[in-house]
Amino acid sequence: MTYSIAILGASGYTGAELIRLIAGHSSMKIKALGANSKAGQSIAQVFPHLRYLDLPTLLQIDQIDFANIDLCFCALPHKTSQDVISRLPHDLKIVDLSADFRLRDPEAYEKWYGNPHAAPEIQKEAVYGLTEFYREEIRNARLVAGTGCNAATGQYMLRPLIAGGLIDLDEIILDLKCAVSGAGRSLKENLLHAELSEGYNAYAVGGTHRHLGEFDQEFSSLAGRLVQVQFTPHLVPANRGILATSYVKGDVEDIHNALEKAYKGEPFVTVLPLGEVPGTRHIRGSNFCHIGVVQDRLPGRVIVVGVLDNLTKGSSGQALQNANLMLGIDETEGLMMAPLFP
Amino acid sequence: MTYSIAILGASGYTGAELIRLIAGHSSMKIKALGANSKAGQSIAQVFPHLRYLDLPTLLQIDQIDFANIDLCFCALPHKTSQDVISRLPHDLKIVDLSADFRLRDPEAYEKWYGNPHAAPEIQKEAVYGLTEFYREEIRNARLVAGTGCNAATGQYMLRPLIAGGLIDLDEIILDLKCAVSGAGRSLKENLLHAELSEGYNAYAVGGTHRHLGEFDQEFSSLAGRLVQVQFTPHLVPANRGILATSYVKGDVEDIHNALEKAYKGEPFVTVLPLGEVPGTRHIRGSNFCHIGVVQDRLPGRVIVVGVLDNLTKGSSGQALQNANLMLGIDETEGLMMAPLFP
Amino acid sequence: MTYSIAILGASGYTGAELIRLIAGHSSMKIKALGANSKAGQSIAQVFPHLRYLDLPTLLQIDQIDFANIDLCFCALPHKTSQDVISRLPHDLKIVDLSADFRLRDPEAYEKWYGNPHAAPEIQKEAVYGLTEFYREEIRNARLVAGTGCNAATGQYMLRPLIAGGLIDLDEIILDLKCAVSGAGRSLKENLLHAELSEGYNAYAVGGTHRHLGEFDQEFSSLAGRLVQVQFTPHLVPANRGILATSYVKGDVEDIHNALEKAYKGEPFVTVLPLGEVPGTRHIRGSNFCHIGVVQDRLPGRVIVVGVLDNLTKGSSGQALQNANLMLGIDETEGLMMAPLFP
Amino acid sequence: MTYSIAILGASGYTGAELIRLIAGHSSMKIKALGANSKAGQSIAQVFPHLRYLDLPTLLQIDQIDFANIDLCFCALPHKTSQDVISRLPHDLKIVDLSADFRLRDPEAYEKWYGNPHAAPEIQKEAVYGLTEFYREEIRNARLVAGTGCNAATGQYMLRPLIAGGLIDLDEIILDLKCAVSGAGRSLKENLLHAELSEGYNAYAVGGTHRHLGEFDQEFSSLAGRLVQVQFTPHLVPANRGILATSYVKGDVEDIHNALEKAYKGEPFVTVLPLGEVPGTRHIRGSNFCHIGVVQDRLPGRVIVVGVLDNLTKGSSGQALQNANLMLGIDETEGLMMAPLFP
Repeated sequence: MTYSIAILGASGYTGAELIRLIAGHSSMKIKALGANSKAGQSIAQVFPHLRYLDLPTLLQIDQIDFANIDLCFCALPHKTSQDVISRLPHDLKIVDLSADFRLRDPEAYEKWYGNPHAAPEIQKEAVYGLTEFYREEIRNARLVAGTGCNAATGQYMLRPLIAGGLIDLDEIILDLKCAVSGAGRSLKENLLHAELSEGYNAYAVGGTHRHLGEFDQEFSSLAGRLVQVQFTPHLVPANRGILATSYVKGDVEDIHNALEKAYKGEPFVTVLPLGEVPGTRHIRGSNFCHIGVVQDRLPGRVIVVGVLDNLTKGSSGQALQNANLMLGIDETEGLMMAPLFP
Repeated sequence: MTYSIAILGASGYTGAELIRLIAGHSSMKIKALGANSKAGQSIAQVFPHLRYLDLPTLLQIDQIDFANIDLCFCALPHKTSQDVISRLPHDLKIVDLSADFRLRDPEAYEKWYGNPHAAPEIQKEAVYGLTEFYREEIRNARLVAGTGCNAATGQYMLRPLIAGGLIDLDEIILDLKCAVSGAGRSLKENLLHAELSEGYNAYAVGGTHRHLGEFDQEFSSLAGRLVQVQFTPHLVPANRGILATSYVKGDVEDIHNALEKAYKGEPFVTVLPLGEVPGTRHIRGSNFCHIGVVQDRLPGRVIVVGVLDNLTKGSSGQALQNANLMLGIDETEGLMMAPLFP
Repeated sequence: MTYSIAILGASGYTGAELIRLIAGHSSMKIKALGANSKAGQSIAQVFPHLRYLDLPTLLQIDQIDFANIDLCFCALPHKTSQDVISRLPHDLKIVDLSADFRLRDPEAYEKWYGNPHAAPEIQKEAVYGLTEFYREEIRNARLVAGTGCNAATGQYMLRPLIAGGLIDLDEIILDLKCAVSGAGRSLKENLLHAELSEGYNAYAVGGTHRHLGEFDQEFSSLAGRLVQVQFTPHLVPANRGILATSYVKGDVEDIHNALEKAYKGEPFVTVLPLGEVPGTRHIRGSNFCHIGVVQDRLPGRVIVVGVLDNLTKGSSGQALQNANLMLGIDETEGLMMAPLFP
Repeated sequence: MTYSIAILGASGYTGAELIRLIAGHSSMKIKALGANSKAGQSIAQVFPHLRYLDLPTLLQIDQIDFANIDLCFCALPHKTSQDVISRLPHDLKIVDLSADFRLRDPEAYEKWYGNPHAAPEIQKEAVYGLTEFYREEIRNARLVAGTGCNAATGQYMLRPLIAGGLIDLDEIILDLKCAVSGAGRSLKENLLHAELSEGYNAYAVGGTHRHLGEFDQEFSSLAGRLVQVQFTPHLVPANRGILATSYVKGDVEDIHNALEKAYKGEPFVTVLPLGEVPGTRHIRGSNFCHIGVVQDRLPGRVIVVGVLDNLTKGSSGQALQNANLMLGIDETEGLMMAPLFP
């Protein structure tokens, strides 16, 4: 069976990544591409690297006929997404890659995003899209909210430790280094090659990054109490990749064991042998997440390092993994490509 | 049916690229990996990005049992390759990625490589591996000699023009810009990040690059007379990609038509609409080659621009394409992955 | 004596480069910085790397009092520049970095820039700013028009050859590779890090780049006949640098001798020993231009390779060199800093 | 007065950086360059970017006549340095850039470097080269031991906080991101462009990096008790720069005030306004260090971010600053060049 797919927001980086992945998928076919700002253009104009594919011309979103669409990916900007999704057919399966449906509490949404939620009713049916931890809910969901790419990275590293009560919940530090495609294709001065190449910096320092809303929601829910991590993202001169370094307090063997147990049998999350650490070059362009655990020289202090590709496992790959579940397809279909190195 | 594959020289970049591609191939299985310098190591030690694959430990080449191998890729350094291949079983199908069997004339080999050929008898059965132009010979070959990555790029751009008598054979200039992985994984000062990032340069200027041996052989053969192009390669701060800019004299319509006709139906070589030019970002990590043609402001002068990924279409992808032919598999199997952008 | 300096267009890359250079100048002091879009901001806000300098707040251009300014650098966009300069005091010494006064023929200007010139009277007094070739005129000029950065590179390589009648004037090819800061600080999709890093491409292919206007003017004037070169620029993933590869026909010894003679005693232009070629890493951040000459394997064909830093020798360094001359200061003052490597 | 200078280890990156800086120094002249591996070569062969300078040919170290040398910089590898220095004239002023004389305790040296110190007598006269904190001792020193580049960064951020008793001494985390030139010009696989560009990773995780020896020595000395920080360095794809993010516990106002007070009047260390953070692009190629302080959302948690150029303020710039003091020259001489941006 072949499923008919629509992608809204097809002209951004996560849209391009969805197309790349679906191009290698055995049972999905892209039937509609929506991108208001580039409607009327062919894929060869918007993404020359995809010109070999037989794809429809980009359309205005309201020109798309969703009658025969089996599943729709929304790769639209925050706020636009809730707007658009609230006007889509209410029985259409949707995987949303924006931040709009990640936070279950409307007040938390307003706190982190600065505006009241425009579709709180729809929010209620959204399932949080961290596949390995919400697999059954996702299988049965109509609307899945893809996680933030940084939020996914930190959760893969820390969820089993928090759930297992293995680390001091008041002393979790997450120092994260993100490549530039995480900021999308928007025209901002700080994203220019001449500004970023050969330069790097921290940003949203002090606990102001929006992905903290997800960390707070998920970690507190796991712990049964308020858990607030310290989180500092950095922008580094690379196109793809997230590497997060977490400083926690606990027993290194317990921590390593808990991670190994949590991801045993998981196709995409790999826990390295104790003492080894991963690099972003090991997962570029793939759906894999690697996690390493090292004992610090100070007793009781442990460093956990995690890497994934922000565009793949951090967003579009995760989205496809969830879509596979929602459609009853093998979860790994279209996602087992090897990382690109060098 | 599944074919058993060996890769010799598995610890270099073309070796890694072969493994990446075969990992997505439906009817090949890697049974042996040879890498003398890293024998005894697991793939996770040599290439952590490939650790998810179920692969054999690296071996000394002479430890490998070739009895059940259907096809062997040799990704060894020049000179080593002829040595090793001359000691392999004489009925083993081999795709060689080195320069050792590209030049049919032993004198040309000695001229460009500085040493007499050690296996001239084997050279005689070698077929030049530029798939689109030697397809039938490759299908029946035992030993295929993969082309130089620069040599492939220039030939895709120029062969139809030379064969068709469409350009001035004495006035062909090929200015080529190659990414650094083309130089392999060897430890040389000029390949260090600190030397190369933010810096670029011409090298082998004046017609001394060894790939000229291939150009001379192939272009002269096509033209039925000696054809010697001017060829200047440059090293640019990127990991993958070749972009060549060719300056020729002829009629732009004739040239564009000849290229379109030559590659009509070809799955991997795309001729852009007249006036459009390609970039390396459009083919990174893929087996595609894009060619653009533009009329210069000076009448009778035409610029042809070609791009491909030196590790894929320029070497390992080409090698797999040829192996598919030699084994009777669909030529595109394992090679239709989309480019990685951004 | 200390000269009072104004810089208009201070918030772009050439503006920042001027400030960097003047910061090390013994007899210039910046008295006014104009930048309409960022008026009211301090230099620390616009360019945090310059925060240690004691500099005035940025102003609207029409807020600046030019009464006590000895020399004004205009680093404004094309078209804006002619507008602004026509309203500046008519006895103010000006070094313009835009394209507005480079072309002496108003028709040539309109042809290449698409609009009629708005200040043809002022154009008449402008001196072309290629220091080494217009030194005396510059010394006495009121208005100097800085050259294009690509135009400077090509002229350093080719002027002595054309002037000396040493090469075939109908067969000059200039294949140029420019770093991204040459495109300025403007917000364009193709200048984003995620688009450009790891990717490179030709642009303005076919003889449409505006710097051809300068080549045509200068080379034809030197030769006493129409000379039209073939010029193809490429954008490469680096922040600073231009490397041009020129293919010419002539005698290699004559060519090398002519270049050596032309630049003997010049502080900033260095001709390498015959057979050596330069790289952009050898001139980054400096005012030097290196030129190499190599005999091709084909008799009578010669390759000339030139490099300079587009922001320094290609624009702001050249501008300061000219300003030094106009003010009677030693020409090299503020310009002898070493290249930054690595 | 002009001082005669020798540089040993002139063919590495810190050697090149010393030459770059001294080229702009008003009262130093390089009289001897030592580099055993490249003895007999000219500077144009070893560092083409320095070819414009009038410099002596590189010599074997034991060929150098130190009789008329006023000060010698040793930019040799660890272990070699102690060997060479113990054989230099015992009244020669020396600034050593290696790790050999940084640790006052020979046992600490052996612990971190794995071998007994070969010149413990000379170690006793060495002064630790963190200029702002050892200024008077340096002025009178014969032998100054340059600090580690990471060690300098962390100390600029933390010394005033530890000395002032303002932070919890048992809870200091330093997550550091270093550019690749910090690893020197050595031929290692992980320093190749193809490995590092587009990839980044943590290394020496768990408290094994040798610069911890310096942190322990200095911080414990300041606090009057054992202080052991957690320190995790990361390698990022850039050529120059260190950015360190420190997580500490204390009052943000006290911390910011203490840093401002400590560096008031210092020419090279700048404390940003509270809440602002620096980037490496703001100090590239300069001798500046920028420090920012931000309150975390969690009360009592503060983030301190520091940046400097590892080759300048982190090693060769620091060395020159110290040499200026030792020779009675103005401390900033040769060091006030602006950062290179973009």
